[in-house]
Amino acid sequence: MYKIVLIRHGESTWNLENRFTGWTDVDLTPTGVSQAMSAGKLLKAEGWDFDLCYTSVLKRAIHTLWYTLDEMDRTWLPVVKDYRLNERHYGSLQGLNKADMAKQFGDEQVLIWRRSYDTPPPALEATDPRCERSDRRYANVDTQSVPLTECLKDTVARVLPAWNDSIAPSIKAGKRVLIAAHGNSIRALIKYLDGISDSDIVSLNIPNGIPLVYELDENLKPIRHYYLGDAEAAAAAAAAVASQGKA
Amino acid sequence: MYKIVLIRHGESTWNLENRFTGWTDVDLTPTGVSQAMSAGKLLKAEGWDFDLCYTSVLKRAIHTLWYTLDEMDRTWLPVVKDYRLNERHYGSLQGLNKADMAKQFGDEQVLIWRRSYDTPPPALEATDPRCERSDRRYANVDTQSVPLTECLKDTVARVLPAWNDSIAPSIKAGKRVLIAAHGNSIRALIKYLDGISDSDIVSLNIPNGIPLVYELDENLKPIRHYYLGDAEAAAAAAAAVASQGKA
Repeated sequence: MYKIVLIRHGESTWNLENRFTGWTDVDLTPTGVSQAMSAGKLLKAEGWDFDLCYTSVLKRAIHTLWYTLDEMDRTWLPVVKDYRLNERHYGSLQGLNKADMAKQFGDEQVLIWRRSYDTPPPALEATDPRCERSDRRYANVDTQSVPLTECLKDTVARVLPAWNDSIAPSIKAGKRVLIAAHGNSIRALIKYLDGISDSDIVSLNIPNGIPLVYELDENLKPIRHYYLGDAEAAAAAAAAVASQGKA
Repeated sequence: MYKIVLIRHGESTWNLENRFTGWTDVDLTPTGVSQAMSAGKLLKAEGWDFDLCYTSVLKRAIHTLWYTLDEMDRTWLPVVKDYRLNERHYGSLQGLNKADMAKQFGDEQVLIWRRSYDTPPPALEATDPRCERSDRRYANVDTQSVPLTECLKDTVARVLPAWNDSIAPSIKAGKRVLIAAHGNSIRALIKYLDGISDSDIVSLNIPNGIPLVYELDENLKPIRHYYLGDAEAAAAAAAAVASQGKA
């Protein structure tokens, strides 16, 4: 049996401002830093240890990993930074306020943008200054693979190759894996692992900065999963994520 | 022509306490953090950029790299953590005060321990609690390759394979390389690159946290080297390093 730990980054400045973030590279708030440190303390106190870490190329996830590893005295662990673990791209909504959009377009439209499995938000223009195609961190990525918008289905299609080509083989090789990523890249992975339907995934929300354990069988099929620490606090934090898009 | 940048970690708690550190995993002081941040600001201000970073498995170097990358907005760069870039192992002197040792054994003996090319300090016993052979970060390293003491000649023999097998091929592949390491792993590398004699290397000292540029020709032979920022400050800091072992 294998165990992996998933952590959504701590609260970011745009989580706090209730803005659609996507691939925008915003940092953690002091609360987010504190959440990441708490995750590390909890993992250490409960005797967890790792051999290999994965994260995205976005600093809110990278910093979450760094603070977690610092608390565990594991700064020296190898870290793979993979853009395929980035947050879902939010298209032309990136930077806009979720509640403002709900006032303008209605709660239902915002819920569709946030949680529809296969309807992406309006795309960024490739000439938009917010477009990441000229960002040097994606210079080695095929241009068409740097999205202009994504629905969760697109994110699943991006995250799964990272799982299949890189993460899953490491787990099967006996590496204890820690993944610090994003709400939707983690939802994409969980949808695949647990075989969650396109409709049921809508109501799955991932709280910030709480270690989520998946126990996997020899074929990497989930046996069970659970949050570390206070289960009620994790549920309350997930519910708060669900309510972010309301006017 | 290639350019690489070497940075010795910022001031550590044991630099401040004037203790022999070696492979002991002590952290940066607030001054050390500030030095690392200044290095990042300077590199950014002067337009330096990188594709690949190397560091040791010791947190004073890893944290120096992290603070530097943070200031450059380059947290997403790939980082290779290689134990072969660790500081010289200081044997049974690890943890002891340099000035105390000079009082007890004389300035000359301490200078031999600190700077002799081929005389190592007294070895740690493998049963000493300070011995790193049971440290999990070296679990994949052959036991005999986890030293009980080292002279600089031993450190050169350890650092060179990291250069030849990993760093040099990356540079020749066109990667712009940043190396955050330690006083003696950097001295070992420079001795090799510049062909410095066993006797002349004694008087080479590397200041904390100041980016050192090496310009290399197509065969990776040095053309010239220089510290970024205030050259006089770098020279004064190097002179301060030289005087640490005096009673």
